[in-house]
Amino acid sequence: MTSRDDLTLANRLADAAGEAIRPFFRARYDLEFKADKSPVTEADKAAEAAIRAILEKERPGDGIIGEEYGATREDAERVWILDPIDGTKSFVAGRPIFGTLIALTQAGWPTIGIIDQPIARERWAGMAGRPTTFNGAPVRTRACRDLDEAILASTAPQLFPGCTGEHFSLLAGQCRDTLWGGDCYNYGLVASGHVDIVVEAGLKLHDLAALVPVVEGAGGRMCDWAGEPLTADSDGQVIAVGDPARLDDILEALAQGHDGHH
Amino acid sequence: MTSRDDLTLANRLADAAGEAIRPFFRARYDLEFKADKSPVTEADKAAEAAIRAILEKERPGDGIIGEEYGATREDAERVWILDPIDGTKSFVAGRPIFGTLIALTQAGWPTIGIIDQPIARERWAGMAGRPTTFNGAPVRTRACRDLDEAILASTAPQLFPGCTGEHFSLLAGQCRDTLWGGDCYNYGLVASGHVDIVVEAGLKLHDLAALVPVVEGAGGRMCDWAGEPLTADSDGQVIAVGDPARLDDILEALAQGHDGHH
Repeated sequence: MTSRDDLTLANRLADAAGEAIRPFFRARYDLEFKADKSPVTEADKAAEAAIRAILEKERPGDGIIGEEYGATREDAERVWILDPIDGTKSFVAGRPIFGTLIALTQAGWPTIGIIDQPIARERWAGMAGRPTTFNGAPVRTRACRDLDEAILASTAPQLFPGCTGEHFSLLAGQCRDTLWGGDCYNYGLVASGHVDIVVEAGLKLHDLAALVPVVEGAGGRMCDWAGEPLTADSDGQVIAVGDPARLDDILEALAQGHDGHH
Repeated sequence: MTSRDDLTLANRLADAAGEAIRPFFRARYDLEFKADKSPVTEADKAAEAAIRAILEKERPGDGIIGEEYGATREDAERVWILDPIDGTKSFVAGRPIFGTLIALTQAGWPTIGIIDQPIARERWAGMAGRPTTFNGAPVRTRACRDLDEAILASTAPQLFPGCTGEHFSLLAGQCRDTLWGGDCYNYGLVASGHVDIVVEAGLKLHDLAALVPVVEGAGGRMCDWAGEPLTADSDGQVIAVGDPARLDDILEALAQGHDGHH
């Protein structure tokens, strides 16, 4: 079971990651590129190492899956899923809207999620069964009566190869505005009721596990583009919606063009 | 002529705008839409009114062109050009990477420019003949030896209607990364040496006048897509490059496809 002790620990993990990251922001550091050309910095590694050191000491039986250092005891009942810097490209460009993602999953289901922005010192924390908080204060998603009132956010059009870009455009065309960039920060803004919808593709487990408790604990809903719950086996197509009453409209818009007669 | 007194005044104008904007950030406020569907908030209006009140009192002979309240004495030798919130969509979505733009033009040429982010309290200030500063400390653009090392930033693919999107994509394909979102903040990051290139289209005079002294005072270059200087009559296609040695590569990439045999 998840206890408040776990949430306290998750907050300490985020504190440690932030301390590791801040000295590198807009400073000089080593930069490498993975096989998929995505950048990795010393800051990513230092932050994940700081988190893992605490977990290994205080929760030696828990599993860990981290973006930079891989999986340890990944078959454990309790697994921490870490993305030390979600939005490394934004971090590298000096933009303070990247974030550290920390999730605790139990039997495969994320029960704690933290989105932490260490430069602005902004933190969303979600935990199954209690309201999501922003810097300690409860937050709620906002109502959205119609897609044409919705602010839609997504990190980059490059996320949408092939016909997925067309589906995204069909949704975007029905929304009031589409805002680009932002990575995990957009999901926090959904939880706080400033953004209505985030639609992305290509997300991996470490990108999305922490988002679910944050968004759903604030009254929103997350699922894949078919409306199915997100799991470790999801294909990376993600919807976050602040007002669950708009989910069907989103699914319908994204499905347009799939079979040519919508 | 431009004096340090003008720069001091420009900083006070930015202070006043920030004070007007901060109470509205992530709060409730009136939201309207212009004919082009772009949003205008109470914060935009309050910030421009605060700036204009100071100018009318202290520089009654200067002209003013503001995004929200139009032109006053626009034929004066000295004209202040104001965009109280550049990136209103980002402001509305609760993202702290919009900015207040303040320029002083003399005989049509921008000699002072300020990009101010009032939530993060970050300010770039440029003035002809002296180095651009970030929160008071001089900053420089960075060297970029090749486009394939460059971080390219641009606010939104929607900026590029018709074939301009194709030209942008041809440039983006030669750069290391393309980062979306950001509005004026991206130009500040060029001045500080964290981003290499910004390419946009559809910018208006109030969007771009303040950017030129900031970017060029840090060692960068700004021009239109044909390599010509930006003027009040520019068509809104803008290039900012941190390392002027890369400008020809950018112009060449953007020109691909124009006549089919590049």
